[in-house]
Amino acid sequence: MFKQLKLLDVDQVKALREIAANGKFVDGKISNPHSKIKNNLQLHDVKAYEESSRILNDALMSNSEFLEFAFPDIVAPPLITLHRPGMNYGLHADNAIIPLPEGPIRSDISCTIFLNDADEYEGGALRVTHGEASMRFKGTPGSAIVYPSYTLHEVEKVTKGERMVAITFIQSKVRDVMKRNLLYEFNEVAALEGLNMRHENYTRLQAAQYNLMRMWME
Amino acid sequence: MFKQLKLLDVDQVKALREIAANGKFVDGKISNPHSKIKNNLQLHDVKAYEESSRILNDALMSNSEFLEFAFPDIVAPPLITLHRPGMNYGLHADNAIIPLPEGPIRSDISCTIFLNDADEYEGGALRVTHGEASMRFKGTPGSAIVYPSYTLHEVEKVTKGERMVAITFIQSKVRDVMKRNLLYEFNEVAALEGLNMRHENYTRLQAAQYNLMRMWME
Amino acid sequence: MFKQLKLLDVDQVKALREIAANGKFVDGKISNPHSKIKNNLQLHDVKAYEESSRILNDALMSNSEFLEFAFPDIVAPPLITLHRPGMNYGLHADNAIIPLPEGPIRSDISCTIFLNDADEYEGGALRVTHGEASMRFKGTPGSAIVYPSYTLHEVEKVTKGERMVAITFIQSKVRDVMKRNLLYEFNEVAALEGLNMRHENYTRLQAAQYNLMRMWME
Amino acid sequence: MFKQLKLLDVDQVKALREIAANGKFVDGKISNPHSKIKNNLQLHDVKAYEESSRILNDALMSNSEFLEFAFPDIVAPPLITLHRPGMNYGLHADNAIIPLPEGPIRSDISCTIFLNDADEYEGGALRVTHGEASMRFKGTPGSAIVYPSYTLHEVEKVTKGERMVAITFIQSKVRDVMKRNLLYEFNEVAALEGLNMRHENYTRLQAAQYNLMRMWME
Amino acid sequence: MFKQLKLLDVDQVKALREIAANGKFVDGKISNPHSKIKNNLQLHDVKAYEESSRILNDALMSNSEFLEFAFPDIVAPPLITLHRPGMNYGLHADNAIIPLPEGPIRSDISCTIFLNDADEYEGGALRVTHGEASMRFKGTPGSAIVYPSYTLHEVEKVTKGERMVAITFIQSKVRDVMKRNLLYEFNEVAALEGLNMRHENYTRLQAAQYNLMRMWME
Amino acid sequence: MFKQLKLLDVDQVKALREIAANGKFVDGKISNPHSKIKNNLQLHDVKAYEESSRILNDALMSNSEFLEFAFPDIVAPPLITLHRPGMNYGLHADNAIIPLPEGPIRSDISCTIFLNDADEYEGGALRVTHGEASMRFKGTPGSAIVYPSYTLHEVEKVTKGERMVAITFIQSKVRDVMKRNLLYEFNEVAALEGLNMRHENYTRLQAAQYNLMRMWME
Repeated sequence: MFKQLKLLDVDQVKALREIAANGKFVDGKISNPHSKIKNNLQLHDVKAYEESSRILNDALMSNSEFLEFAFPDIVAPPLITLHRPGMNYGLHADNAIIPLPEGPIRSDISCTIFLNDADEYEGGALRVTHGEASMRFKGTPGSAIVYPSYTLHEVEKVTKGERMVAITFIQSKVRDVMKRNLLYEFNEVAALEGLNMRHENYTRLQAAQYNLMRMWME
Repeated sequence: MFKQLKLLDVDQVKALREIAANGKFVDGKISNPHSKIKNNLQLHDVKAYEESSRILNDALMSNSEFLEFAFPDIVAPPLITLHRPGMNYGLHADNAIIPLPEGPIRSDISCTIFLNDADEYEGGALRVTHGEASMRFKGTPGSAIVYPSYTLHEVEKVTKGERMVAITFIQSKVRDVMKRNLLYEFNEVAALEGLNMRHENYTRLQAAQYNLMRMWME
Repeated sequence: MFKQLKLLDVDQVKALREIAANGKFVDGKISNPHSKIKNNLQLHDVKAYEESSRILNDALMSNSEFLEFAFPDIVAPPLITLHRPGMNYGLHADNAIIPLPEGPIRSDISCTIFLNDADEYEGGALRVTHGEASMRFKGTPGSAIVYPSYTLHEVEKVTKGERMVAITFIQSKVRDVMKRNLLYEFNEVAALEGLNMRHENYTRLQAAQYNLMRMWME
Repeated sequence: MFKQLKLLDVDQVKALREIAANGKFVDGKISNPHSKIKNNLQLHDVKAYEESSRILNDALMSNSEFLEFAFPDIVAPPLITLHRPGMNYGLHADNAIIPLPEGPIRSDISCTIFLNDADEYEGGALRVTHGEASMRFKGTPGSAIVYPSYTLHEVEKVTKGERMVAITFIQSKVRDVMKRNLLYEFNEVAALEGLNMRHENYTRLQAAQYNLMRMWME
Repeated sequence: MFKQLKLLDVDQVKALREIAANGKFVDGKISNPHSKIKNNLQLHDVKAYEESSRILNDALMSNSEFLEFAFPDIVAPPLITLHRPGMNYGLHADNAIIPLPEGPIRSDISCTIFLNDADEYEGGALRVTHGEASMRFKGTPGSAIVYPSYTLHEVEKVTKGERMVAITFIQSKVRDVMKRNLLYEFNEVAALEGLNMRHENYTRLQAAQYNLMRMWME
Repeated sequence: MFKQLKLLDVDQVKALREIAANGKFVDGKISNPHSKIKNNLQLHDVKAYEESSRILNDALMSNSEFLEFAFPDIVAPPLITLHRPGMNYGLHADNAIIPLPEGPIRSDISCTIFLNDADEYEGGALRVTHGEASMRFKGTPGSAIVYPSYTLHEVEKVTKGERMVAITFIQSKVRDVMKRNLLYEFNEVAALEGLNMRHENYTRLQAAQYNLMRMWME
């Protein structure tokens, strides 16, 4: 399932762009040395990395739509990447296990946060496939798209201008996407309609939700 | 989970009691020859058996409370049993596999249908345990109690009069009792409150119910 | 996952259109009487029904792409539907259980087969959602789109002309969409690359595929 | 499943009652602000809280019956509550996730520890439902009742006197209640009968128990 | 897991050898046309096939050791094969799905029944691997070896004489080999030690066995 | 599944033998006081223990064959044991839960590391059973055999000389042996054949592997 978030405010976007402006970008193959398809630049600067991580992590963990949709357990530090004309990132599924200093995490959910305007570049859409169908995303600055890490997806070639995004990976407390989405749907309906129900029925619905969570949460 | 049903009407009870009055009862060990704990009589008469089966099967499969609670796949032909003074059926769990002429079924759910009045006998309660807790049931004629076959249960000794019940076993389309009960709860709440919801939310709830069923039904 | 099929040849399309031309169409609410969102016409004619079923079933069960993708266990008889100007079918998930004369089936996969040209009508796209993202499909005559029954989807309002499609539901031998898709992917790669591998490695790959199938097929 | 424990000795009960006597009780809604059904008092005093937690945790984790039955992974700090005349706690299932300072736990098992005598109050039984059946518990001081958190349960209205209990929640190493109970049963039988078996058969039984644990423990 | 059976008596072996003597053997590639590793002869004669199937099926379904070990649901008609000098059947896992006239079955368990004496040929052992370890089997006439279909196994090259065996595949009511073996172990211990136990403990053990079967049998 | 490893080099073996030569060995019942079948000596010396643990842990965690086969999560500190003439360790399955100072682990995989030459003792083979079949292992110094902890296995009686091994237990990130082995097989085939594949197919294979890992890793 996909969800679009209004994640960062204008100041947060500005802060991240300043970090990027002052940081050092290197070839993205630094973290995937054998890749034949990764063709981008990524921010490589310990201090910049910590500061951008803090901003994005705070934004995600205080975004109630994200919390309700993703059941996040651990969020990997986000990474800022650039695609300049001619650069792309070919079709791939994200790795199942992301090594982090604090120990490896499982990437259940991937998240792309757009940092510049879609008008600033041509091409460069995030294309996510579902078998033979596919969807293209180019967001406004500060918006984010959240999608399952298991999908085959790509960043199409930028033909003009520069595309700047941050990307991150989330280990969810609910591993299976179907189960995660069912919990989300039951919770949403209960939140939207709970106050209109007879108390006895709301109690039953809530108990059933709790029991699904007991069954499925890690 | 337990459910009490108003299953048979006065005529159906009367018909079954007449079948019993005209049929032959034999030692219940006939179907469990090595049992040390089964001490009752059961109806053993092909014609009586067919007729009683038809009545009870029709009653169960047209009882909407039963259908919604049990998700029945196959119902074994019910058996009429008698306990006379001194008779009991010691603590046991029902067998997992019940051989039937049409092939074996799995007994997920057990059902006792009371055929005479609790005033007609002393003792003879159906006692179902849950670990160290237990519940006792003595129903009115035509009422039934439905309970999970995995529980340890017994028929306490009859000390006076005669107890007549029919018993049967149900293979459910939802094997696991926790899952079966969750589907029942979500369905009940949707049925009771669906019309009060905004149509969009009801659609989401219904889709989530369907998707749980898709995941769990055999 | 989605798959587009070239399912019917020109003659098969023609045969189905003739059946439709000679058959009787009735309000689609006939099979969903309480629906607030179903607003279409469906073919209601026993003889037409049998003949169209046979054509579509033969086409599906001899289409190797379909067989490899869907692992079909049972295919429901397809139904021909019409949407005329003003008609739509609002957002819904397909029912989990489809009653058929031979017994109920579980709808894991839904299939829409296009019977007339997209130029013959305006609007009327099949829109399938994935959370907040969605995809639109309008196929050429004889083509089909296969998609998971759990998705929320709709037929958008036809604004001009007439849309004619057949729809059906498939119970798969692999219930879970993630598992079904993984089997499909491993099988595809083995089929495409098996001959290039050392025989010993191909044997290992094949044994692993068989063992996944043993684990997951119903 | 239910289990009754002789948990605390006279001195431990006395110590807890003294803590309660010297501590401050506040409205129970402090921890469930939106509850319409919680109507009790709970001890709210950091020092009292720590001391009572230590006593109860020690008692639970050294009680072999509890350890064998619950397979406890984490025990939440217990909370002392009071129900005075007119107070009750309406029917509810316990929340799936209990936030604790050290991180959230999943409540698989709920535990009520009785701190005063059933003679000291009228009403106030713990009533636990199983579908349409239910059981009532009022224990002696120091005794405890352990039951699955998924059940709908309530504290009935106290009509006279004061009811004092401690309650806690346990995350088990065996999440599913059916599996947890099966491990308990196999372990109990092996413990009770193992010495009477031929060594070869005991070894096989023990290996099978270990292998169930390997399959099911988190 | 592996089990050796004393399956056929002298007369049954003799009957099968006579069928083979009068039947027609063809290249084994007839049923695996693309195989690069199958190099044997198999009996191809409808009448012979029916008669041999009946003998072997009767023998398997009345062999209590087999029934208790394999929990057979469906047994494929056995096939008689010959390996003559120079023939082998290279390393492979058995196919997950075996097409039969009555519909496909899943091969969970494979079974080789030896029809001539190990002295009558050199080489020709059945070698079953478990990762880097392996075991070799050459049985006496009428004996059988039962092993999991998922293993990689081979028939080593016959260097002298002729090897005659029957092979078959079994779909089990308990798909997973670990679960099937656990049920077998618990059942064996209960059968061997049940009579020495106190009745109450035996009842608990039996209830636990039934509940495992309820959970795991298809 | 079984795997043999060339684990330690000559210097590592020598270092461990020196530790053993200078350490104190005690009756193996010290860690299984009630065992009727454990009859060996084990190194009991804190300092020796730490040093030997470090050597063996380093060797395991830098052995790529081990890492790829076992998906190790936690490796218990290895233990050096001696069997002298007359000593054996009767048939048993390893305990499911191994208590360690840092908390208990689940033993999914057992590992025996041979420290002296098979010529230095008679008898003393590690015999691992699979139902009625079994395999015997006696390795060269520094070699190791890795096998599932659920198997019944024994150390046969030493009749002459002295057998010195180290043993350890591994909690795997993939609990189920069938799933662990499937991941291993897919990974091996992808590693061995990936470079020969078209890039598009390799990407699909890799995505499928990642998705199996996402589904199965703890």
